[in-house]
Amino acid sequence: MKYYLAHITITLRKAILDVQGKTVENALHSLHMPALSNVRIGKHIELDVHAPDKETAQDLVEDACRKLLANLVMEDYSVDILEPRKNGQMK
Amino acid sequence: MKYYLAHITITLRKAILDVQGKTVENALHSLHMPALSNVRIGKHIELDVHAPDKETAQDLVEDACRKLLANLVMEDYSVDILEPRKNGQMK
Repeated sequence: MKYYLAHITITLRKAILDVQGKTVENALHSLHMPALSNVRIGKHIELDVHAPDKETAQDLVEDACRKLLANLVMEDYSVDILEPRKNGQMK
Repeated sequence: MKYYLAHITITLRKAILDVQGKTVENALHSLHMPALSNVRIGKHIELDVHAPDKETAQDLVEDACRKLLANLVMEDYSVDILEPRKNGQMK
């Protein structure tokens, strides 16, 4: 059993109006940054997964996304599992 | 001038207690997922950058992070600029 690090990105679906993103975009334009547009804000979640292999870790995290972390009606998720290195740090 | 897509990840610094992450971790354990731990929750921001080259795009987005998007006292940010492809989609 090893500890994997999982990076999860949860984003609002394209068809859903992102009010928070629109507000941030207006604020950026007020701060004289007109080059930035189409701001969309989502969640970034990092967690440790105790699992025998990478596939099991991926399954566990996707299960958590479906059951708790993401609202599948409005949001999409993507999961990235990082291998633990021998010295205990993640690559 | 091209449109680059920027992915920004904003995370709480390690030394800061992540109350929201701890709450999610407790919820995961209540849902019989004890293999998941050390949950930390941050923000994921996507935006378009209108800039002549990738370096300028990176500078514009980092400037926005410092001025508005991240609270540098408590948060770290990382910026990833994706090149536009010829057909207008991002790679």
